[in-house]
Amino acid sequence: MTYCVGLRLTKGLVMMSDTRTNAGVDNISTFRKMHSWTIPGERAIMIMSAGNLATTQAVISLLDERTKGPEDRQPSILREPSMFRVASLVGETLRKVIAGHSVAGQQADSSFHATLIVAGQISPGEPTMFMIYPEGNFIEASQDTPFFQIGETKYGRPILVRAYDPEMSFEDAMKLLLLSFDSTIKANLSVDLPLDYCIYSSDSYSLETGGRIAADDPYYREISEGWGDALRQAFHGLPPYMFPEEFD
Amino acid sequence: MTYCVGLRLTKGLVMMSDTRTNAGVDNISTFRKMHSWTIPGERAIMIMSAGNLATTQAVISLLDERTKGPEDRQPSILREPSMFRVASLVGETLRKVIAGHSVAGQQADSSFHATLIVAGQISPGEPTMFMIYPEGNFIEASQDTPFFQIGETKYGRPILVRAYDPEMSFEDAMKLLLLSFDSTIKANLSVDLPLDYCIYSSDSYSLETGGRIAADDPYYREISEGWGDALRQAFHGLPPYMFPEEFD
Repeated sequence: MTYCVGLRLTKGLVMMSDTRTNAGVDNISTFRKMHSWTIPGERAIMIMSAGNLATTQAVISLLDERTKGPEDRQPSILREPSMFRVASLVGETLRKVIAGHSVAGQQADSSFHATLIVAGQISPGEPTMFMIYPEGNFIEASQDTPFFQIGETKYGRPILVRAYDPEMSFEDAMKLLLLSFDSTIKANLSVDLPLDYCIYSSDSYSLETGGRIAADDPYYREISEGWGDALRQAFHGLPPYMFPEEFD
Repeated sequence: MTYCVGLRLTKGLVMMSDTRTNAGVDNISTFRKMHSWTIPGERAIMIMSAGNLATTQAVISLLDERTKGPEDRQPSILREPSMFRVASLVGETLRKVIAGHSVAGQQADSSFHATLIVAGQISPGEPTMFMIYPEGNFIEASQDTPFFQIGETKYGRPILVRAYDPEMSFEDAMKLLLLSFDSTIKANLSVDLPLDYCIYSSDSYSLETGGRIAADDPYYREISEGWGDALRQAFHGLPPYMFPEEFD
């Protein structure tokens, strides 16, 4: 399993992904699920992936190979003129990889499916974010749905729904994402630290702010423990339930 | 879908279930998913169900018919000597109903599966709670796992994990369950009010405290709105995230 979240804020984009992959509970590994490409001053593109690791690695490698190829090699996410075209190219690549594995290979117990979040900005467009389905089609984040989750999405969703605010700072966004990941990590063994994050500030066309939150990160530990206390306080601060009088 | 939770407390047992059933999003109905039987002074039994409605109604009807039958009709959940034996009988009934539908009927798009929570107390035993799988086997709640959820379990789990306390009062348990249901209802259209609840006080052998929380219940609305504010306050009360200095 996997958990990745992309937030679209007024200030820019914030991405976070876990790094755990598993084939059964007895076979776990750490793999990066976040990848990025930039041309300073022109474009910045981030991709996060959930699903079959062979599929997502193949997609990323294909996209990456093309970006490093000679000038005339097309198509490349570093040459497409808009984020919409980038999303189309990524979707098409994903669809072909899955189709290739499904048709050519042996029958497999697990599916080759994967889902991606593609986000970024290409001048002169706005920052945008897409969720790309295994079939290669995709949807774009909007004001009504300003964040996307892929992988194990459910445990971490209630806090996102309640505390997300498009005007929030990058620091608050990081705190919110860490809480959402903490709820998920506490409930699902197949999601775990370290966490990768990447911040894109609107119109910066660079991805300098990003890194990895290690399992022993002191801030993560502090809010993970503090959140339990804060939730219990919030719980006790709400008005008490009273049974109808008939039961007294 | 469905959401049902059973809590085992030191004081007794608290059950809550939603009432929405759906066959696709364009075909929703309200059905009771909580059922109970008592012999005052001797036993109290509650069953909650998630899964195929035809299956769960058949199981409840079979169990109920037998309880109303002549004295010598066996087996009956009103005559079994222990909760373990009741759970075995319910599990066996469930397994047979599913097997009967699966073998005899037409091929169906959806599965006939269902999962049940069975809880209660039979003198002189302790109050206990079981989760019964479609295969008819079951597990019992313990100190380590003192609550069971069935149906759409994920959205409402983080608050249960954080705020459950075996020593809590029935009033606090109701508040906790309503918050857990609120998180689920906000995220999943196929779970909705009204909610049925039932309280069993240890060694009471009666189920007098129970009822239905309607969609316009003022307390539910108050804590649903209050919880959003409380979560945001708790969020802002946590220490702020600070990016590593290299990004300044």
